[in-house]
This record gives sequence, structure tokens and C-alpha cells, in this order.
Amino acid sequence: MLRHPDELRELVEGYLGELAFTPELGALEEAVRYPLDSGGKRVRPVIALAVGEAAGAAAEHVLPAAAAVELVHTFSLVHDDLPALDDDDERRGRPSAHVAFGEATALLAGDALLAEAFRLALSYPTPMVGRELAQATLGMIGGQHRDVTGDSGDLAALHRLKTGALFSASVRVALWVAEVPEGEQPAWHAFGDELGLLFQIVDDLLDGDGYVERHGEAETRLLADQSAARAQARLDEITADTSVLAEIVASLAARTA
Amino acid sequence: MLRHPDELRELVEGYLGELAFTPELGALEEAVRYPLDSGGKRVRPVIALAVGEAAGAAAEHVLPAAAAVELVHTFSLVHDDLPALDDDDERRGRPSAHVAFGEATALLAGDALLAEAFRLALSYPTPMVGRELAQATLGMIGGQHRDVTGDSGDLAALHRLKTGALFSASVRVALWVAEVPEGEQPAWHAFGDELGLLFQIVDDLLDGDGYVERHGEAETRLLADQSAARAQARLDEITADTSVLAEIVASLAARTA
Repeated sequence: MLRHPDELRELVEGYLGELAFTPELGALEEAVRYPLDSGGKRVRPVIALAVGEAAGAAAEHVLPAAAAVELVHTFSLVHDDLPALDDDDERRGRPSAHVAFGEATALLAGDALLAEAFRLALSYPTPMVGRELAQATLGMIGGQHRDVTGDSGDLAALHRLKTGALFSASVRVALWVAEVPEGEQPAWHAFGDELGLLFQIVDDLLDGDGYVERHGEAETRLLADQSAARAQARLDEITADTSVLAEIVASLAARTA
Repeated sequence: MLRHPDELRELVEGYLGELAFTPELGALEEAVRYPLDSGGKRVRPVIALAVGEAAGAAAEHVLPAAAAVELVHTFSLVHDDLPALDDDDERRGRPSAHVAFGEATALLAGDALLAEAFRLALSYPTPMVGRELAQATLGMIGGQHRDVTGDSGDLAALHRLKTGALFSASVRVALWVAEVPEGEQPAWHAFGDELGLLFQIVDDLLDGDGYVERHGEAETRLLADQSAARAQARLDEITADTSVLAEIVASLAARTA
């Protein structure tokens, strides 16, 4: 019996809320917890849990890997908000980490989130969960560097790194946890890659930048719908009950926030 | 036939010099390579290789784990030098990374060094190398936070985190690569913990701060010699040819730079 995305999100929230960080972090823990508690949509970990369930794993068993992906996402937000990068004072309606705790603590909290992500990913007997996470993190950092240095000539390539890499990882880590044989993984990977693109196109629709600036709103809406259709087609090629993932695709295409 | 520390250091330099970073880093690679190429002493990776050889592994097989420890060390230097933390413009006689490349790129280069470290640590079939690295990195970050917030009441506890954690990891990762059974590892751990303390005491002797400020120079020299004697005693408890490690202990105690 597959769980609905809302139930999966509750699982994620519960797990993150009770997550025991490494005691050696000491007083830094408060600044590590703060950006994690900020009511994000948890899109990436919910995808990881849904993929895990579709592939036959218990969502509970996928939670550490799913949380690891969310921690890497959160690390990137904390560092991107710093004055040296995007210099954003607010994040999800609250002061960003460096405003709340100072730059030094926010920088170290970001570092700690990344290291904690690997600690979680390494709680499995296989190193593959961690390998996927490292690869995605490096792609994301490379994309962020291209973005801040203005080297964003090819928008699709930039997004594939900046957003896509971690969406792909959400799918990939779950496959290893569910012990899906490597030979059966490519169909899932194609789905994960499309999901990242869909998320980014809709993000640009909501923000009125990126794809909207290049193609206009109407055409960007069309691109989003085409991406959602391709993601669904990828799901149809997978031999598993992907009904919950189909719901996630539909809600990503239709999201308004 | 165990190799001399100088040969081990050459192995490390060769490996780091030819290290292939993740292609997705793109133009960021230059800033990732820069702080690694700065002629550090490579103490940590040399210890890892020497422990690996003493425990029966080929140094070449230990290299990715040893390099991973050096990358974590280098990540910490790049971030610590940033204006938000220690604001150091120079590192080993050259402009520090943020002076050479700007703050945004230095911040991202530090992040990339940490993620690359995990990529290397995860090249082994066991997740244990990565687990040791995550644990040490989190201890080090907790120590750095205590240091910058002035919460450094217990100097020994602070050093155990800030310096000691990564020295311990140098020993621990090599034990997993050499497949030393977990039950035989505690004697090695005691050696690794002592090595970190020895390094820090001698560091304070050379810089005239820390232990020297609290205990005076003569007593700090005595503390260093006692620590070296304890490290040697730990080695004597290990059933292996630890002659190269004994050399390393002697040179750490006698170092002048």
C-alpha cells in the first residue's frame, strides 16, 4: 500500500524534527537546525520516499537518504544566502541564517549540514548512497559557480547542474536503498532527470525569470506541460506501481508556490 | 618493505597533483586546485599511508583515503581564511583563496573540496572510510565554532575537536582500507588521538600561543616530549612494524616549522 505524498511529507517532517545531530557540534546545532525548520516543501525527500516505496522499500528505511538530500539542499541555501554570494536577508519569510546567527556561524552551519548529509547517507551498508550524493553536490556547486560568475550561456545546462543534479539524486539514492539492480536503474534515471527540469521550468514560471525571460510566459507554460508529459511517459516505462509518483508529477506541474 | 615518510609524501604530492576533479566543477576547478597546491607538509595523509603500510595495505591503495583527509583539511583552511571567520589574507606565503579568486569563488571552492573529499572516501567498497571522515569533519567544525565564538574554556577539549579529530581520522581511515578488524583498532585509535595532541602542542610552541600562553614555553616543551613518549608507548602496544610511525612521532616532536 503506497502512501500519499502528504503522508510522506509528514514522515520527512517528523524525521527531520527529531534528527539527532553529532554532539560535537555543540552550540552550533541551533544554527544547523534553524534553516531545516523553515517549512520548505520537502519536494526532494518526498520524491526519494515515493521512489523507494514504488521500488519496494519501506519509506522508513529510505528516510536517512531522503533527509541527506534535504540537508544538501539546505546547506546550499544557507551558503547561497551569504553576503559573498546572493546576499539574501530573507528566506521563506524569516531572516536567513547569517542574519539570525551572524556570518561566521552561518558559514559553519552550512558546512555542518553538508557533513551531516554525508553522515546520514553513510548509515547504509552500501557506499552508493553517499556516492550519488557527492556527485550531485559537486554538480550543484559547479552550477552555482557558473551562475555567480555569469557563465550561464546555456540555461538548460546550468539548470541541469544547479537544480537537476539534486533532483536526480533524490531518485538515485532511493534506488540503492531499495536495492534496485543497476541494470534496471536507467529508466528511473530518465524520470529523475526530467523531474528536475520540470521543477525548474515551473519555478521560472512562478518567479517570471529564466525560461520566462527567454521564451515568454505562454511558451514556458507549454514547456512545463511537455516536461510533465515526458516525466509521465518515463514513469509508464517502469514496471512498478508509479501512481504516487504520477501524482507528484501532476502537482509539480500545477504548483503555484 | 615500509617506505620512508619522505617517499610517502612524494606519493601524496604526485597523487594530489594528478587528481581528476569532477568535470561538472568547470571553471571552479582552478580555485579548488590552488589551495591544494600550496606546499603544505601533508602530515595527515603521510600518517594515513604509514598506518596503512604498517597494517599491511599498499600505500597506493590508501592514497584516495589519505587524499580525502588532506582535502578536508584544505577545505577547513579555505573557509577559515574567509573574512567572515579569521580574515587571513595570506596562507603559506601566498594570497589566500578569497584574495586570489574572490569570496564567492573561495566559499564554493571550499564546499567543493569537502564534497570531493567524500567522493574519494567513497571510492572504497566499505562506507567506513566515509563515516570516519564525516565524524571527524563534524568534530572539526564544532571545534572551529567554539573557537570563533570564544567558547574555548577547555583548551584540551577544543584542540581534540579542532585539530585532533582529523589526525585521528588519518589513522582510522587507513585501518579500514587495510581491513584491520574492528576489535584490533582501539590500540591504533589511542595512537591517533595522541598524535593530534602532539601536533597541536608543538604548533603552539612554534607560534607561542595556546599551551605556551597558559603554561609557559619550558613546560610546554615538556608537555610535547611527554606526549611524544606516550605516542611511542602506544605504538609499542601494536603488533606490527611501526618503525616508520616512530620516525613520524620523533619528527613531529622535533619539527621547527
